[in-house]
Amino acid sequence: MTRVLQTLGLTTCPTDPSSLTRASEASGASGGIVCQMSMDDRATLEVAKVQARLGLAEGGIPIGAALVADDGAVLGAGHNRRVQLGSPIRHGETDALEAAGRLPARVYRASTMVTTLSPCDMCTGAILLYEIPRVVIGEHRTFLGGEAYLRSRGVEVVVLDDAECIWLMRDFIAANPALWNEDIGE
Amino acid sequence: MTRVLQTLGLTTCPTDPSSLTRASEASGASGGIVCQMSMDDRATLEVAKVQARLGLAEGGIPIGAALVADDGAVLGAGHNRRVQLGSPIRHGETDALEAAGRLPARVYRASTMVTTLSPCDMCTGAILLYEIPRVVIGEHRTFLGGEAYLRSRGVEVVVLDDAECIWLMRDFIAANPALWNEDIGE
Repeated sequence: MTRVLQTLGLTTCPTDPSSLTRASEASGASGGIVCQMSMDDRATLEVAKVQARLGLAEGGIPIGAALVADDGAVLGAGHNRRVQLGSPIRHGETDALEAAGRLPARVYRASTMVTTLSPCDMCTGAILLYEIPRVVIGEHRTFLGGEAYLRSRGVEVVVLDDAECIWLMRDFIAANPALWNEDIGE
Repeated sequence: MTRVLQTLGLTTCPTDPSSLTRASEASGASGGIVCQMSMDDRATLEVAKVQARLGLAEGGIPIGAALVADDGAVLGAGHNRRVQLGSPIRHGETDALEAAGRLPARVYRASTMVTTLSPCDMCTGAILLYEIPRVVIGEHRTFLGGEAYLRSRGVEVVVLDDAECIWLMRDFIAANPALWNEDIGE
């Protein structure tokens, strides 16, 4: 998997936080790939994972997200609500933004969007609209969204390759392929 | 204005439908700029404008949008509801998508998004997520959104340069600069 991602110009962070390295340092790469995973990223991913599990328990698509301030405060957390609200716009990230409510630009610009799954085009755009400078992603094996575009616009993207995020989506997609395709416009 | 837009590689359609030309034919351009304005575009823009006026009457930001099927049926119409709902994700286009509800991919792919204002990054992304092939824009003088990115992803973009859409936004921005900046993440 690592080789595949490197071919794509992407880098994942190790799943085990104890083996933390900065991928850009480890690889000696001079390019724009930055992977500054920290224990905090694992902790904030947990907030998004709680949301994903909640969505699954509600009969929905198990994707969760949280907008987190630079001091670690959770500004808003949410999950995909396509099924629950009949909504085509409440993805994990947009639901987290909605939960956070109206915020000044400076707050978004000092925040991180943490999401269990690589963000789709809409959620990529929402991150860009509010100039959120950093995105932490649980996994991008089951769906690869707008990560390259985010990086091209200067956003730091960290992929944690989290085992639970992967199986949550793999199991869900296997059991609900039509619903999943609807959610990604396929 | 036309000269400025041509410098940017953009083309506006004439405001008066009676002077309709296909800009790509008129200019002899071999590039990807396509401007197939029709009387129908003016009519569907009116649906979006009604929404913008409604938003203004509610004390909100006067931007409206509609998702329109290829037979002209309005699938959903909406307007910016930042003020009304305290929402950072209900822009005109996303509110129209929410109003349309859950739709099969084939419906989006045979539809047009009509909006009074050039779509921001989030709404650009929503259009791309659902592979909506055509976007009709009332104006892009007060705000230029993701039009170039839409075109780069194969979306047809038509700009009508509508006088009412322009003054609705000019008046609103002049009277509410902070609110407007909040809406575009500034």
